[in-house]
Amino acid sequence: MRDTYLVGAGQSDYGAFPEESYRSLFRTAYEATVESAGGVDADDVDEAYVGTLGVGGRQLGLSGPAVTEHVGLRGVPCTRVENACAASGYAIRQAVMAVRSGMADLVLAGGFEVMTDSSSEATKYWLGVSGETAWERMSGTTFAGVYAQMADAYMREYGVERESLSRVAVKNHANGAKNPQAQLGFTCTVEDAESAPAVSDPLTLYHCCPTSDGAAAVLVASEDAARSFDERIRVAGVGAASDRVGLFQRDTYTGVPASTDAADAAYGAAGVGPADLDFAEVHDCFAIAELLAYEDLGFAERGDGARLVDEGVTDLDGALPVNTSGGLKSKGHPIGATGAGQAVEAWKQLTGDAGERQLDDPKRGLTHNVGGSGGAAVVHVFEREDAPEPRGAGAGRGEVGR
Amino acid sequence: MRDTYLVGAGQSDYGAFPEESYRSLFRTAYEATVESAGGVDADDVDEAYVGTLGVGGRQLGLSGPAVTEHVGLRGVPCTRVENACAASGYAIRQAVMAVRSGMADLVLAGGFEVMTDSSSEATKYWLGVSGETAWERMSGTTFAGVYAQMADAYMREYGVERESLSRVAVKNHANGAKNPQAQLGFTCTVEDAESAPAVSDPLTLYHCCPTSDGAAAVLVASEDAARSFDERIRVAGVGAASDRVGLFQRDTYTGVPASTDAADAAYGAAGVGPADLDFAEVHDCFAIAELLAYEDLGFAERGDGARLVDEGVTDLDGALPVNTSGGLKSKGHPIGATGAGQAVEAWKQLTGDAGERQLDDPKRGLTHNVGGSGGAAVVHVFEREDAPEPRGAGAGRGEVGR
Repeated sequence: MRDTYLVGAGQSDYGAFPEESYRSLFRTAYEATVESAGGVDADDVDEAYVGTLGVGGRQLGLSGPAVTEHVGLRGVPCTRVENACAASGYAIRQAVMAVRSGMADLVLAGGFEVMTDSSSEATKYWLGVSGETAWERMSGTTFAGVYAQMADAYMREYGVERESLSRVAVKNHANGAKNPQAQLGFTCTVEDAESAPAVSDPLTLYHCCPTSDGAAAVLVASEDAARSFDERIRVAGVGAASDRVGLFQRDTYTGVPASTDAADAAYGAAGVGPADLDFAEVHDCFAIAELLAYEDLGFAERGDGARLVDEGVTDLDGALPVNTSGGLKSKGHPIGATGAGQAVEAWKQLTGDAGERQLDDPKRGLTHNVGGSGGAAVVHVFEREDAPEPRGAGAGRGEVGR
Repeated sequence: MRDTYLVGAGQSDYGAFPEESYRSLFRTAYEATVESAGGVDADDVDEAYVGTLGVGGRQLGLSGPAVTEHVGLRGVPCTRVENACAASGYAIRQAVMAVRSGMADLVLAGGFEVMTDSSSEATKYWLGVSGETAWERMSGTTFAGVYAQMADAYMREYGVERESLSRVAVKNHANGAKNPQAQLGFTCTVEDAESAPAVSDPLTLYHCCPTSDGAAAVLVASEDAARSFDERIRVAGVGAASDRVGLFQRDTYTGVPASTDAADAAYGAAGVGPADLDFAEVHDCFAIAELLAYEDLGFAERGDGARLVDEGVTDLDGALPVNTSGGLKSKGHPIGATGAGQAVEAWKQLTGDAGERQLDDPKRGLTHNVGGSGGAAVVHVFEREDAPEPRGAGAGRGEVGR
């Protein structure tokens, strides 16, 4: 199996940009990616994968070629990949596969979404049809409603207070405030989060990510192709898994089995465990999702995830910083861009380009991208070539910050 | 690069099935695929790719996992792939890549579409947003309109009469009449086609494929995994290419450059040329598309494609039978299923399971699947293991039937 590397990564700002189109946002992300790679000749790009849910339906078919032609990659095979909010996490996985297959040496993977120009009713429709449509949506349940059920079940089962959810928001806003590309780049307090209007009890406005416009991309290269770039970050492991699309159809309300399965596959492929990670970007579409991710990804035992945020373990200066970018909560969540945007943060941290939120010489990080409420998940482990020998798959499982 | 094989392939009937859902149609295709493979343990399936445009928007996000969970492949990483009408042709290509990458040994690739339960206005919308939306769609141009422009340009440039387009319809209906799974399984005459109502001049109703419900799938295996199956068909070559999405943006109205690029890549990978093929399934969404395909795929020189259908070269008993299944024209065109359905026909012909339309011991065939009016194309070459040594890439280029 051929080794694969990130050789560039970049994104547009996330936010509400009425003057931009999906194409112009993707172009911004592409240009940032090319710049981060120290320049790329379009003729050298063999293949492209583009993730988008297609919110708004403005270019529902062939939106992959529609954006790659716009950035000058005319003729390059381009495939749109979709797994709801995990679309571009899967796009990166396809790029890794393309390189490993020997069918490509340099592959663009990215994603985009334009959400803020639709009415909230329209956005609810476009997001709703990414949930389970036969029962969940028809019963009127939105994604906020699904995650509220998970939050309620988690809080009851483990005796967790809503303040822990609020601390996720506080942490991620604090990080996002150091990220000039974040949509909600302001800080907030536990009191702000607690007193905000309810969206779906127990979740308040501050426990929910915003709707966002944005695009992000990475360049994935074979070992040979990577040699001609200034910087390269190894894709140490990739894992993906699916599950039943509806929360009510799954085995648990207090975990996302697809995340665990994807993480196990990625850890196994990389030969690493949670103890080997210096940071993680996890899918915090709602605050509860970050606490579940701590447990699904093996950072904490079941029911012990809230401790990590309560004790500051996942703060920027904690033992395992999580969502240094601000996460979906503060940086924003343009559906199709999110997975690639997480990899952009991993690239920035590992190449020392994370500005005010830069960690102290991190060597290895993880990204975790979820589709829907857990119908699909994909996990990547990225590492510098000078990363220390890992302690091995399973190392530190459930023990982060202990 | 690991060798890859089809080890099973099957489809639902194509047609209008108000009593079926996208899930039930996909299940039918999956069960037919498993049966053709002589049985498959769901636990042995490592990965899945599902193509759909999502016409009707009933499960717009996560429709991949939504159908794979329904057939019992819970947990298996599943990715939705979309390139408009080439969605499942690309899904098969991703399955081949997954096997070649070493990340999977047995992969399901398929697709589905449900189109007949939407109003024709709604269907026009869902198809329209797979064309170029900024100008083509906004000017009111439908896909029939785009292909009518191609037909008009082709007929003028090469002095071709509309009767040649009608002969494509006559041939494909004759083949479809021998295919019990075809949607329009009746024969027609040149007179029927010529006298039918105009859809977009010069195209009449008989020059256009129907809207269809249906699903199709294949199983792609590594060489090792293929050994445990009764029959296996080698994936000798794969090629894909993109182009600008709008016809008016491309270099020619009388050809589809992405098809030529995809075919060149597939021929090169397989080391074969048109002279090495025993049959082909090509993307005849409109009759003109089949004539252009003859030229884009190198069966005939530019302007000489009409001769192949005029002289019967591509008839079931001709030198190079094309669309033995009935093609999109007669068999039907459930968007996301079409590419996989073409591979199902290749499988049936190469395993001797094509019933009344069975060719005499064919050894090697090609499938050609186009997205939109040529924004994407994908070509596969399939062959039996006892196929004769090919004459080589380029062999017989422009000379079929000479």
